[in-house]
Amino acid sequence: MSAPEKRQGFVLWFTGLSGAGKSTLSQAIAPLLRQRGLMVETLDGDEVRENLSKGLTFSKEDRDTNVRRIGFVANLLARNGVCAITAAISPYASVRAECRAMAQVPFIEVYVNAPLAVVEARDVKGLYARARAGQIPQFTGVSDPYEPPARPEVEVDTSKLSIEEGVDLVLRYLERRGLIS
Amino acid sequence: MSAPEKRQGFVLWFTGLSGAGKSTLSQAIAPLLRQRGLMVETLDGDEVRENLSKGLTFSKEDRDTNVRRIGFVANLLARNGVCAITAAISPYASVRAECRAMAQVPFIEVYVNAPLAVVEARDVKGLYARARAGQIPQFTGVSDPYEPPARPEVEVDTSKLSIEEGVDLVLRYLERRGLIS
Repeated sequence: MSAPEKRQGFVLWFTGLSGAGKSTLSQAIAPLLRQRGLMVETLDGDEVRENLSKGLTFSKEDRDTNVRRIGFVANLLARNGVCAITAAISPYASVRAECRAMAQVPFIEVYVNAPLAVVEARDVKGLYARARAGQIPQFTGVSDPYEPPARPEVEVDTSKLSIEEGVDLVLRYLERRGLIS
Repeated sequence: MSAPEKRQGFVLWFTGLSGAGKSTLSQAIAPLLRQRGLMVETLDGDEVRENLSKGLTFSKEDRDTNVRRIGFVANLLARNGVCAITAAISPYASVRAECRAMAQVPFIEVYVNAPLAVVEARDVKGLYARARAGQIPQFTGVSDPYEPPARPEVEVDTSKLSIEEGVDLVLRYLERRGLIS
């Protein structure tokens, strides 16, 4: 039996503040990638925390460990031909750089950028209000840092673009890279 | 573009005492499965501990968490068409059963069975001597339990079979199940 056609897997790494639109964008793009013939797996921040990182806190050290685990699993999937989408805040640039360095496949960082004032005004889950009230400690953007990517492969400002426009930006980048046709 | 041919992934879960031959068997079988056209990923116990479970101890609770994480990642891979091989001791029957229940793909449990006396006499890594000397606490088979599978899909007694014979048993089972051709 001949070896199967090897698909080129890659990591599609969304990063940005809580509420910036990482999950929304990743959920919108996943089915479109599947339509184009890719295997797609989304590693959602909450699901990973439940299954791989239970017991970790939101201290810098534990956040870093959580993000490294996401990077490890994303690479495992992607080196087996899967498009591994991650949608965790992943606030620290150095740890995202580690995940990029670990990846044995193309690593596409998508900076989901929206001004803090905008995501805080939206406050879809009510988390910013609770963080400002001191009910959630170490909340990224409020009481914990977010380090924006210096050179992301794609940047989507969700305060200016619709979801469809943001998805389109990502798809066009992947086409240019030859990762989708 | 049409959807790619979807491969049927599955989990090939080796379980058994330290030194029974889990890693040896899994390392021997992985290239043979690749030759037959499968994508194969091996989750080695030590690698997983380093990347997903650092800080966990060998208490029952922490061992269970480690094995659940292996099961979670193996399923992620296998539901994307990969043959996910695991080779951790995974001493507790109930947690292996949880991993089986969690799997959305065929779950093939391979009991790598060799009498404790045999693996202890081999003591390839010198771990049994250290465990008997009290230098390694909670060592499976010595000071911690190992619960053998009641109904494993395949059983390989490495005190009676060669590696080649063991590999052959597993391959023939996978053929009968239609997981390889």
